Amino acid sequence: MIKAAIIGGAGLSGLELLRILHHHPQATPLVATSSRYEGQRVDEVFPHLAPLDLRFTSNEAGIAAARDQGCDVAFLAIPNKASLELAPSLVESGMRVVDLSGVYRLSDTEVFRKYYGLEHDSPALLAEAVFGLSEASNGTLPGARLVANPGCYPTGALLGLLPLGELAADLAMPPVIDAKSGVSGAGGRVEDDSTNFMEVNENFKAYKIFGHQHLPEISQYLQAHTAFDEATQGAVVFTPHLLPIARGILSTIYLRFKQPVSPAEMRALYSRYAEGKPFVTLLPEGRGAELKMANNTNQCVVSLHPDETGQNWVVITAIDNLLKGASGQAVQNMNLMFGMDETAGLR
Amino acid sequence: MIKAAIIGGAGLSGLELLRILHHHPQATPLVATSSRYEGQRVDEVFPHLAPLDLRFTSNEAGIAAARDQGCDVAFLAIPNKASLELAPSLVESGMRVVDLSGVYRLSDTEVFRKYYGLEHDSPALLAEAVFGLSEASNGTLPGARLVANPGCYPTGALLGLLPLGELAADLAMPPVIDAKSGVSGAGGRVEDDSTNFMEVNENFKAYKIFGHQHLPEISQYLQAHTAFDEATQGAVVFTPHLLPIARGILSTIYLRFKQPVSPAEMRALYSRYAEGKPFVTLLPEGRGAELKMANNTNQCVVSLHPDETGQNWVVITAIDNLLKGASGQAVQNMNLMFGMDETAGLR
Amino acid sequence: MIKAAIIGGAGLSGLELLRILHHHPQATPLVATSSRYEGQRVDEVFPHLAPLDLRFTSNEAGIAAARDQGCDVAFLAIPNKASLELAPSLVESGMRVVDLSGVYRLSDTEVFRKYYGLEHDSPALLAEAVFGLSEASNGTLPGARLVANPGCYPTGALLGLLPLGELAADLAMPPVIDAKSGVSGAGGRVEDDSTNFMEVNENFKAYKIFGHQHLPEISQYLQAHTAFDEATQGAVVFTPHLLPIARGILSTIYLRFKQPVSPAEMRALYSRYAEGKPFVTLLPEGRGAELKMANNTNQCVVSLHPDETGQNWVVITAIDNLLKGASGQAVQNMNLMFGMDETAGLR
Amino acid sequence: MIKAAIIGGAGLSGLELLRILHHHPQATPLVATSSRYEGQRVDEVFPHLAPLDLRFTSNEAGIAAARDQGCDVAFLAIPNKASLELAPSLVESGMRVVDLSGVYRLSDTEVFRKYYGLEHDSPALLAEAVFGLSEASNGTLPGARLVANPGCYPTGALLGLLPLGELAADLAMPPVIDAKSGVSGAGGRVEDDSTNFMEVNENFKAYKIFGHQHLPEISQYLQAHTAFDEATQGAVVFTPHLLPIARGILSTIYLRFKQPVSPAEMRALYSRYAEGKPFVTLLPEGRGAELKMANNTNQCVVSLHPDETGQNWVVITAIDNLLKGASGQAVQNMNLMFGMDETAGLR
Repeated sequence: MIKAAIIGGAGLSGLELLRILHHHPQATPLVATSSRYEGQRVDEVFPHLAPLDLRFTSNEAGIAAARDQGCDVAFLAIPNKASLELAPSLVESGMRVVDLSGVYRLSDTEVFRKYYGLEHDSPALLAEAVFGLSEASNGTLPGARLVANPGCYPTGALLGLLPLGELAADLAMPPVIDAKSGVSGAGGRVEDDSTNFMEVNENFKAYKIFGHQHLPEISQYLQAHTAFDEATQGAVVFTPHLLPIARGILSTIYLRFKQPVSPAEMRALYSRYAEGKPFVTLLPEGRGAELKMANNTNQCVVSLHPDETGQNWVVITAIDNLLKGASGQAVQNMNLMFGMDETAGLR
Repeated sequence: MIKAAIIGGAGLSGLELLRILHHHPQATPLVATSSRYEGQRVDEVFPHLAPLDLRFTSNEAGIAAARDQGCDVAFLAIPNKASLELAPSLVESGMRVVDLSGVYRLSDTEVFRKYYGLEHDSPALLAEAVFGLSEASNGTLPGARLVANPGCYPTGALLGLLPLGELAADLAMPPVIDAKSGVSGAGGRVEDDSTNFMEVNENFKAYKIFGHQHLPEISQYLQAHTAFDEATQGAVVFTPHLLPIARGILSTIYLRFKQPVSPAEMRALYSRYAEGKPFVTLLPEGRGAELKMANNTNQCVVSLHPDETGQNWVVITAIDNLLKGASGQAVQNMNLMFGMDETAGLR
Repeated sequence: MIKAAIIGGAGLSGLELLRILHHHPQATPLVATSSRYEGQRVDEVFPHLAPLDLRFTSNEAGIAAARDQGCDVAFLAIPNKASLELAPSLVESGMRVVDLSGVYRLSDTEVFRKYYGLEHDSPALLAEAVFGLSEASNGTLPGARLVANPGCYPTGALLGLLPLGELAADLAMPPVIDAKSGVSGAGGRVEDDSTNFMEVNENFKAYKIFGHQHLPEISQYLQAHTAFDEATQGAVVFTPHLLPIARGILSTIYLRFKQPVSPAEMRALYSRYAEGKPFVTLLPEGRGAELKMANNTNQCVVSLHPDETGQNWVVITAIDNLLKGASGQAVQNMNLMFGMDETAGLR
Repeated sequence: MIKAAIIGGAGLSGLELLRILHHHPQATPLVATSSRYEGQRVDEVFPHLAPLDLRFTSNEAGIAAARDQGCDVAFLAIPNKASLELAPSLVESGMRVVDLSGVYRLSDTEVFRKYYGLEHDSPALLAEAVFGLSEASNGTLPGARLVANPGCYPTGALLGLLPLGELAADLAMPPVIDAKSGVSGAGGRVEDDSTNFMEVNENFKAYKIFGHQHLPEISQYLQAHTAFDEATQGAVVFTPHLLPIARGILSTIYLRFKQPVSPAEMRALYSRYAEGKPFVTLLPEGRGAELKMANNTNQCVVSLHPDETGQNWVVITAIDNLLKGASGQAVQNMNLMFGMDETAGLR
């Protein structure tokens, strides 16, 4: 039985981790921290998790308890700054860490500073961190001490783009990713106007246009895993939008190739990619991905749509931002790190 | 042309006042205050109001400007404490005041302290204030210096109960008012967890059960305007609930009479009450009031539902809490105060 | 391994049954019927259930297959008329039946005709049927050939009222049950105007006032399981409302006692009732039941709220209408029928 | 006073026309047709329009009445096929017609057949029809016998693209228009599954990808009014999506220029375009268009967003699909046809 600590257990991602791990056949949550609810039973504060016999502790007490009880893995579901502070010592202590913040994803600390407004003081650990897009991890997870769990938008975007592989060199323009997220993916529970019900309900808008911190993450891993090259083909375009719903990210991805790509060729590429990947679901021709197909699951649902010429394609992906886009993928990564069935606890 | 000042112009009620008065044929908004947006043009901050050539000022500057420009009326759309502080001097200055807060509604300052947690330091002004349930104002508005605009819940509840008149003495139990409000009636835009999208969306709950500050307001005016007597018949029961929508209050009111009341008798009572009241709409038999019938209008829509015996009745009322429940009724009161057509600017 | 057939597998309740049984440790769905999707793989039509290797069949083929494969239990998630037709022969065939329709709940066929507009042609089977409010089944489920799964509203109402037991004789007026349901509990997916998005969204209304078919169901079992007596105390009052959300029923229940009931006494009653019932959660004093506490779980969450005198009480219950109000409770009943852990597959 | 007939008065567009014309200072609705509600008073069926003393008639009776009463203008808010049948004789009768269907927008009857599945049997009238994108009508409306009111998506897309004018020749790729519409713009009230609450709520999806009938409309008028040329620059890309809200269309438009375009140049173009157009609102730098800025108004709100290089631009437009995207623009066109103030009745 894998013993897990959840640092930041009362946020949206933390609660999902608690729910999943509580029912996981080979893992169990021993520690959950929350300054706000310190000392209270998890299922008294959150009755939908009942019965769950665990009390929130402070971060400090939780980390100490995790060490004392020999926790195998710690999930960090805390703000970037807190991850930057806590991750190194946790790794040093021998616990394996899955970090859900954005701190260990971007290899370039200059880019990190620009988009996150923070100095990175652990470049060695950053260099060592494994990017936890499970489907692209290629066997690196079993040996990882620190896994950088991907952002929600990058997960949806990359699973729609990585299947292109070499074909990405034939794009006549950079991919345009028009992404729409439910509120939980855009910082729900944060207590400012922007996620107040009266601001979000019956409204819709784009935000952080050309400036979202997930843009460089998409760009870096797209170039690392396909033949796409920003220097010659242009910078990826990415616009996040806020949907007036709780969860789910739909990414509408526009591709324009130099030469037409036949439906057979395109489908073959994406089918091959999905093969053996339990959480990638390619829809049959004629059907389009919708949020309701992915929500409350750990799946990424993908659909392919050519125009008449075959030169223009729309690829659509749907994920649940709290599961495949955060806590579900974090557990998927844990499963792979410890040699368990990739799907354990996730169906 | 009536010149109006809106103290608290950037909250939900203030914005509705701005919208209505901007299009009012016999009134115009000259002043709108907001500390947050001080100095900015109203329609730059809120493009849906464009074009509206007016700038937000501080409260102090706005009140001074209102005096200098000879404003006829000031609307207070500010928190209770601020109304308590500002109303007396505004009234003294000769401006007529419509106060949308709860400060001048309850005649008993002890009850006020209990439900609002504030000391009332203007008992004389309180005694003088006219309760602005327009339909029950009986000619008192033209002479009023200070009008206490009713609460949103009391408006919906009282318009469903006042038609009972003498018949209220025959109630076998106190009215049970089960009320459901959209977020704007329950403190939207307030920046705490309780109106965060993630708390409200796809959720539903009761709040302040047996303890809401609108309960004594309903009780006081129900007894003042009908034969209902709490001392002998028992205390009114009122439970507010929070709907995951922007606006509207539906009140489901349960009445149980000592003797059966015939549909003809009941309908006659309510028809007579609605007669000549442009904003009370009694639905024909067989139809039930819904929020969509009242939202974005200043109407109170009423429906009547007997059981087979005629001893039990359900009365349903629907209002838009920001219009008939707040700013619309405030303008209706202004119209009556200044001898204009009651419906001016409200259709 | 219990082998299950789901007759009506593509409606909202049927899909929930499929989801639950697919992951149930001691049961498995072998048959799922749907005329609309006959021949298609379940998880191609409904990707959120992937992977699920099962094809929809017609009702006829499904029932035949269920017999051939020796299914232990059939769930009927079909319209009332279809249940009336199919249940008897299924029971005769030796399969045990859990019927989610309203056909086998009301003992009086006259009342059934009045509220359902149908003749009941299986009175013997009706007399034999066991009412499947799991918490009130008192050991009758293991021997049952036919279980009448309760309605969603009755489940929420009765779990808030049954704990009263003998005390119900002291009610000074009949209980007033003001219930609010998400669209899935009020006939979602039915293709008429009334559940069209444009009718429901940002709207709220009551429906079937004093005439809903769940009223006699509540009345019958309330009198069967408590000391409440309609003949002397008056008829239960019940008003359903339609919430603009997908799922969940919140019931606000108004009780008025002849004598004050102390918080200690009331809490003792409800605590005792909840004891040993894994799916009844009584909230601590001061907290109120909300839909989000029960949604996506099989729990009924209950809270208690006295007025100052103790004579008036509000009891609030929250359930997920598709789980505890339908498919979850159906599986809970199956668990009890076959001597399994009551909670198997439901957490 | 302009006398107006509304053919199709009980659909979403028809009801908006009724609401606007009822309050229009220089026009009045004399006729409203609806087969479903024939003979009923408008404000009894739709209490939110009260008081409105008008009864629905059949189409036949309504057209006859319109002739008898000398109606000046008829609005067609009916399905395409019905418009095809009714428009010619109405025009012949001397009434001026504003058609809200898609029948008189596409100049090429082959393209019309392909996208609408209908034969066009009035090519002469089609050739004569004036396209009613008010801002691009260039004085043609006063002389028009038949105005083809634009589609909702084309209105939002074209008002974001027409300001480019000559600069559109410098686009390095065709514009990508990612549009998101509330349900009323995607056929609400239509009684099939696709707009059922359970399908739409908490869901999001694209539809008719590369195949929506508004695509050729955007393409035709974009080329007619700017230097953009599909033959050399490629076909416009347009993807509509369904938002789980009632109204509003947000269009995120991706432009990639051959050479960088400076913010000053771009803003100058769009400012010049907005000048003198009362319903085009260009947001200041740094602000992004949101639905709530346009909803319940006749405005198109526009915002401009460059990347760091100036080669890529995002243009966002927001409209209310029932107002600027349908009935509001129809009245704006009526105002211009009859020489009235363009904004009459629309603020």
